[in-house]
Order: sequence, then structure tokens, then C-alpha cells
Amino acid sequence: MLSYWNDYPTIQNKLQIVCSLIEKQMRVRNKDIQETLIEFSQAGGKYLRPAFFLLFSSLGDHEKQDEKQLIQIAASIELLHMATLIHDDVIDDSPLRRGTMTVQSKYGKDIAVYTGDLLFTVFFELVIDAMNGSKFLAINARSMKRLLLGELDQMHTRYNKQETFRDYLRSVNGKTAELFWLACAEGAHFGKAAPEVERLAGRIGRSIGIAFQIYDDILDYTAEEDVLQKPVLEDLSQGIYTLPLLLAKEKHPDVFLPYLEKEQDITPEESQEVAQLVVAHEGVEMAKDIARRYTQKALTDIARLPECDARDMLQLLASQLLIRSY
Amino acid sequence: MLSYWNDYPTIQNKLQIVCSLIEKQMRVRNKDIQETLIEFSQAGGKYLRPAFFLLFSSLGDHEKQDEKQLIQIAASIELLHMATLIHDDVIDDSPLRRGTMTVQSKYGKDIAVYTGDLLFTVFFELVIDAMNGSKFLAINARSMKRLLLGELDQMHTRYNKQETFRDYLRSVNGKTAELFWLACAEGAHFGKAAPEVERLAGRIGRSIGIAFQIYDDILDYTAEEDVLQKPVLEDLSQGIYTLPLLLAKEKHPDVFLPYLEKEQDITPEESQEVAQLVVAHEGVEMAKDIARRYTQKALTDIARLPECDARDMLQLLASQLLIRSY
Repeated sequence: MLSYWNDYPTIQNKLQIVCSLIEKQMRVRNKDIQETLIEFSQAGGKYLRPAFFLLFSSLGDHEKQDEKQLIQIAASIELLHMATLIHDDVIDDSPLRRGTMTVQSKYGKDIAVYTGDLLFTVFFELVIDAMNGSKFLAINARSMKRLLLGELDQMHTRYNKQETFRDYLRSVNGKTAELFWLACAEGAHFGKAAPEVERLAGRIGRSIGIAFQIYDDILDYTAEEDVLQKPVLEDLSQGIYTLPLLLAKEKHPDVFLPYLEKEQDITPEESQEVAQLVVAHEGVEMAKDIARRYTQKALTDIARLPECDARDMLQLLASQLLIRSY
Repeated sequence: MLSYWNDYPTIQNKLQIVCSLIEKQMRVRNKDIQETLIEFSQAGGKYLRPAFFLLFSSLGDHEKQDEKQLIQIAASIELLHMATLIHDDVIDDSPLRRGTMTVQSKYGKDIAVYTGDLLFTVFFELVIDAMNGSKFLAINARSMKRLLLGELDQMHTRYNKQETFRDYLRSVNGKTAELFWLACAEGAHFGKAAPEVERLAGRIGRSIGIAFQIYDDILDYTAEEDVLQKPVLEDLSQGIYTLPLLLAKEKHPDVFLPYLEKEQDITPEESQEVAQLVVAHEGVEMAKDIARRYTQKALTDIARLPECDARDMLQLLASQLLIRSY
């Protein structure tokens, strides 16, 4: 879905190269796996994280940059993202992702577990090749660990009726914001930007990541299934309580707790009722407020970046991305 | 099961330190996962791969060695091994491993997938910390990839009645021998041994790894369940045809093909019949011959190593390990 970038030909061209590199890395002896991987890599991801990486890299000193290195790192970020998606789908037993069947629903969990593992490996191969000797190698390993710990946190709080905004934020910080943080921070770093820009980049990435996840969770309560291209309210029946519900529940526990106590026995009709109640009790509005705050924080930091085309585009992207179709 | 090393106090002491480091690396916020991981790490592994690593490292120049680095790398090898075991058990739906319940049978596949991922990450954290800037970083990533490709090969040839010795060897080379190769080669390398010793070390590791896997597969046909501490003939019903069967089938296809054509519908009684037929048609004897050849190859190479205690011990281990309880 690089068509998302039709209005930004510079970024689109670079993402096309990133995309080709990813496909090249997926050449393995086993043709079934190779096809699965290539199909998955083309199945509609927007390559958001590599795009942020490339934008922040262009804030740096172009003369000192290593183009091949930048493409490799951009690809590594998307590969890490794809690996976690494949394993998440195994765990959620999700039938759909990006409007097409998930790897595990199509080929079974065996293939899905190993293809996810393989992508983690390709991710490491790429970062090692791109930055052996750099301190960012350890940072990449740490980010991957935080990503997994974020997922584990989320799993740990399943069906936890006491879950708070704080718990939610911790999990989101790991499972989503960490990778945006990494993309932006290492974009500035390997783009040879000033240390102050690198620090700002990381902060912007984290704010955008958090806002992005909150909007994503809001969509679960507002979007139609055909827009979302995945089953609506999947999270709820799996005991994953996201921000709109958490905020509505905090104000009206008596309304929501009887539903949550049903845990996995909640029916699709009851899930729909919960969704309507969340909207009626302003859970969605309150969640939007918080997402707006993080977006604003990102925009304030973006305004502090050196003036240039990339900054303008980041501004546009941050505001646009976070006002998605709901 | 460091008691395996009771007669070798030097190695046992070092492995104890490796073991402590592994436990330390497993400290995560989620206490359930932490307990699972620590329990798994103590559940009877012999720490064979780190032991080979340490033995080969002691062939090098002790004055130039970095003890902390050696312990970290030894731990990383066992962590990589553990990560693949956990994911293998998810794929095989194995109830038992090392005589205790597998992570996935005890905590479900969700926890098992993520704990495996976490161990891959901890593996990378450790190698990056131990050898950032070294060429062996890329070699580690490559080995991990070959390990996974070996597993994928094995999955790909499931229920393949045409499978040959060559296919088997390719899969074993990846899924088992690669890690022994890595342990021995990087043992010599980071122990600061001569390049010739490093080359020999890798060859010895690969021969031992192949022989080790063949003996392991023989055990499936000869051992009692209580000795093996895992269900006997599990592989057969899952369509994984190992060397004793492959060799017997090659000589007497008419005897074995009718059984293999039943694929997953083969009954436990029929599996037992196949096992008896494999023994009766000398599949086990022929497989032992091949394992012996690889052992002999390892022993010949070991004899070429510089004379020292570690060499004597490698000699003993190679002969002893490969004559296991069958």
C-alpha cells in the first residue's frame, strides 16, 4: 500500500527501494514460506515506521550519510514490525490482517511461528550488517525486548477488570511507541543529525506512537468492519480492554463491570452493546482528548526541529495520520 | 542437570556461572513468565553446547582471554538453544520435554510463543554486549537463520515418503549441527586460539552435532519412555522420518510404505510395529554405523588439536556422549 504515499514521491521512491530490499531478504529455500513472506510484506502495510525513519534521517547532514545503510535500517524496522504482527496473530488467532488472511489462518500456526522467527532473524542480520560496532545495535535489541514485554504486559492484564489508564499506557509504550521511538531516533542518528535533533526525534516518535495506538483502539469502537479490514471488537472478547472502554468504565463501573465479568463468554451482541455504551458514556471522546494531547505534544516538538521540507512533512503526517477514517 | 558434569569440576564451576547469568537475564516484570523461564532453564538441560564452547575456548591463549565475554557467549548459545526448543514444542504440541511439562502444555501457546521470542532477544542482547564490532556477530545471526531453515526443511518434508538420507542430513545440518559448529568455532575464536584450531573446532562441532542428532533419533526407536523422558515415536506420527526409518525403508520400501501412507492416521500400535520392523530390518544398525563414522571423523580432528587437558576431555566427551543409554 505504498499508494498511501502517492503525494510524496520522494518518500515513495525510497520506500520502494526499502520494499525491494525486504523482498530480497526473504529469499529462502522453502518456496511456500518465501511466497507467504513476500505476500505478507506486500499486503497493504503503509511502511509508516520506515517512512518516519527516512524523514528524520533527511534532517541530518546529507554529505555524511550512507544511503545503503539508511535503506537497510529502514527495512530492518519494518521487518521487526512484521515479525511481531505475525506472532501476535498466532496468539490472537486472528483470521484477518490488513484485509487478507493472516499467515496463521492460511498456513497454520507452525508456519506462522517459524516465519515470525525468521523475520526476527532477518531483522538482526540487517541491523548487524548496517551498524556493527554502533551503540544502536544494543538499542535495537533493547527495543525488541521492550516490544515483547509490552505484548506480555497486555497478555498479563487480559480480563483484568481493575486495569487502569496507567497499565494501558505502559503496555502501549512498549508494544507500539517503542518502535516509533526507535524509527525516529535512529533516523536522526544515522542521518547524522545534531544530538539535540536526535533527542527531539525520539520524543516525537514516542508521542506519535502513543497517539497512533490510541486512535487505533478508538477505531475498534467506531469503524465498520469493511473499513477496518479486521474483525471489529476482537480485542474486547479477548479480554483486552483499551482506552475508550477503560475511561468509560472508570466513570461508570456499574454499567460496564457486569459485561466484563462474562470474560470470554461475552456474546457478539453483548460486545456490540458494550461498544454502544462506551460511545454513549463518552469513552471515545475522552480517549480522543488524550490522543489529541499526545499529537499536540508531537507537533510542538516537531516545530522545534530545524526548518526544512522534512519538518513540514512530519507536521502534515502527524496531523493527518492521527485523524483517520472514523 | 549440571550433575552430568560431576566428574569435571572445572567445567561444572564455569557452567554454574553461565547458569546464573542466564537466570539473571530472565528477570522480567511479568513474574509468571520469569518463573516459567527460570524453571525451564533449570529443567535438566546438560548445557552441552556451552560446555563445548568453554572447552574449545580453553585451547586458546589464556592471557588474552576476557572471562566475562566468554561466560556471556557461553550463555548466549544455551539461550538460543532454549528459544528454539520452546518454539519447537509449540509446533510439535509436545506435552513433555526433559521429563517435565513443556512451556506450551503448561502455560499455553501464547506464553510459549512470546517466551521463545523473549529468549531470542536475550540471546541477541548478550551477543551484542559480548562482541559488538566482531565478525562473529553476523555469524551468530546467520547461524540462527540456518537453525530456523533447518526446522522449516524438516516441516516441509513431513509425510514425504520420498525423503532421502540427503534431505535428512541437510535438515540435521541446520537444526542441530549448526549450533554445535557455532559453539566450537566461537569457543576457539574468543578463546584466542590459532586460526587453524578455530577451523578444526568448527569441523569437530559439525561432526559431533550430526552424530549427536543421529543417536538422538536412534533413541526414539530403542529407548523406553521412562528413560527418554518424552513420548517415544512422537516423530513418526508427526510425519518426521528420521535416519533409522529412512535407511530401513530404502532397502525394504514394500515393508514400510503401507505404514507411511497412513500419515497422521497411523495408530500407536502401528507405530510400535514400525519401530520393531525398523530394528528387524537393521535400520538402527545402519544408522549407528553412520553416526560412528561422524564420531570417528570428530575424534580424528580432535587428535589434531594441540595437546592439553581440554583435548583429552573433548576426546572423552565425544566418545562418551555418542554412546548413550540405548
